[in-house]
Amino acid sequence: MSEPGMKCSRCTAPARFRFPAHNARFCDDCLEVFVLRQVERAIAKFKMLTPGQKVLVAVSGGKDSLACWQILKELGYQAEGLHVSLELGAGQFSDASLASCQEMAQRLEAPLHLLRMEDLTGHSVEDISRANQRNFCSVCGTLKRYYLNKLCLDLGFDTLATGHHLDDEAGRLLGNMIRRHQRHLDNQWPVLEGTPGGFAKKIKPMCRLAGREIKAYAKARDLPVAQGHCPRSKGATLPYYQEAVLLLEERMPGTTRDFYLGFLEDKVKPPVQPDVASSCSVCGAPTYAEACTTCRFLEKTARRKQERTGAAQAQS
Amino acid sequence: MSEPGMKCSRCTAPARFRFPAHNARFCDDCLEVFVLRQVERAIAKFKMLTPGQKVLVAVSGGKDSLACWQILKELGYQAEGLHVSLELGAGQFSDASLASCQEMAQRLEAPLHLLRMEDLTGHSVEDISRANQRNFCSVCGTLKRYYLNKLCLDLGFDTLATGHHLDDEAGRLLGNMIRRHQRHLDNQWPVLEGTPGGFAKKIKPMCRLAGREIKAYAKARDLPVAQGHCPRSKGATLPYYQEAVLLLEERMPGTTRDFYLGFLEDKVKPPVQPDVASSCSVCGAPTYAEACTTCRFLEKTARRKQERTGAAQAQS
Repeated sequence: MSEPGMKCSRCTAPARFRFPAHNARFCDDCLEVFVLRQVERAIAKFKMLTPGQKVLVAVSGGKDSLACWQILKELGYQAEGLHVSLELGAGQFSDASLASCQEMAQRLEAPLHLLRMEDLTGHSVEDISRANQRNFCSVCGTLKRYYLNKLCLDLGFDTLATGHHLDDEAGRLLGNMIRRHQRHLDNQWPVLEGTPGGFAKKIKPMCRLAGREIKAYAKARDLPVAQGHCPRSKGATLPYYQEAVLLLEERMPGTTRDFYLGFLEDKVKPPVQPDVASSCSVCGAPTYAEACTTCRFLEKTARRKQERTGAAQAQS
Repeated sequence: MSEPGMKCSRCTAPARFRFPAHNARFCDDCLEVFVLRQVERAIAKFKMLTPGQKVLVAVSGGKDSLACWQILKELGYQAEGLHVSLELGAGQFSDASLASCQEMAQRLEAPLHLLRMEDLTGHSVEDISRANQRNFCSVCGTLKRYYLNKLCLDLGFDTLATGHHLDDEAGRLLGNMIRRHQRHLDNQWPVLEGTPGGFAKKIKPMCRLAGREIKAYAKARDLPVAQGHCPRSKGATLPYYQEAVLLLEERMPGTTRDFYLGFLEDKVKPPVQPDVASSCSVCGAPTYAEACTTCRFLEKTARRKQERTGAAQAQS
């Protein structure tokens, strides 16, 4: 990332980071100014937060969400953390993730809300995925979205921030374009407004920052980032689209920003949370079906477990 | 491409080629059937040609255009070749390209129309590019499109076929989407209808075939393909988009077909050649300006040369 003798584009001090997309080199201090400005611009442009607002940050322990929390605090928001522990991969990955979130909370002297997915659902994600014969990543994603939203509202927040960044959003956009998912294209936006009693407002304050810019920031600020990748993240296609975007970015620096931010510029009007016809008969969450996906997942998992117990008892 | 013990999906003979996008393996004979069917389908679906029609094939000497010519002949069209020699890279690349086209013409016992770009323009492409201070590839592309169209009509053909294949078109589509070139997206279609006296009809019969499928076909049929790449093809961005498409195809076989053919399926109506307001005051070709781009290129090149000659004479 750095080259010997490189000078900061802002202050001419020795620079540590080079960003071809911006044709810029930064020292640690100026990098921080740059990063904070990008987040400020996203928040203002997309009306994500009002000054000093309370906001819950979904933190995984990775660089993106920890940086998001740090930055929101520095920008003066009452940002608290929420970590849902998934306990995957013999626990090591999840233990490290949890420890990172806890260290970050101590540093920021900010509250961290901690929950175990298994306590929330009564089952392991693995069991739910198997009982429903569904891809692990897709089940995990559904559960996370459901509980992050629910916990956000239960904890008295109306806005949930996530660490999704430019590369994430550009990869998603590319995937939606290539697979021609028009409805997803219509809905892709860095803010989704909440609805009373149903959905929390979702915001992506890091949407103007590339992964490598956040990585540099995490390094400059020495954030306690959990290392490693999710041991179960196989079969998801999003990383392939991100890989394609990164390839184009490497060949033509600035492509990712022009692509994603240009797409947002072209949008005539931002999407709204869809009107949801009814409430889940089990948990009351907004849904199109009689029961929401998560409740159906859990109901089926419980049923399968009961069937197995019944079969085992009959055999003995 | 092949694996030991692999069997043809059609006839169970030993297979030489494997195409994950089609979940198929083919022997040489069945590969040929497959390739011909794909071209037949494209011709029928997009109303490219009527049975036995006269058609001029723009041949470069590369696998795609030679395969296109071979296939159109086999499908019973009166396909003649047109090769415009560019004489680039100390002539070696261009000499090999010309020799390939000539060998192909002999094999097919079909007429080949040969022209040198320098004879057509009166200047080298290099000189035109320099005099107009324009990127070489873009100037070369403009000239080729202009002269291929003009020669097609002058030679008494109304339809010009090119070897553009699925990967070319998908790469172009991706580039247009990422750069949000809406007008190019509106016009992207494997056929462009001609206009009387102005534009020949342009067709891309290979648009359902991937580059690797054509490569396999060229190998199976032992086509006299010119090796090497254009020595001047630097600075073009299309190859980057193609690279990104190939990456996605490798990760998720079938993505390219679904992407491009799906895009065509979704089109409400195919584009038409735009109404052109006027004719070039120099050559009469359709244009939006007073003189067409090619005539302006040539005029400026001649002017620069004259200025230099004048300056040299004044000095001596």
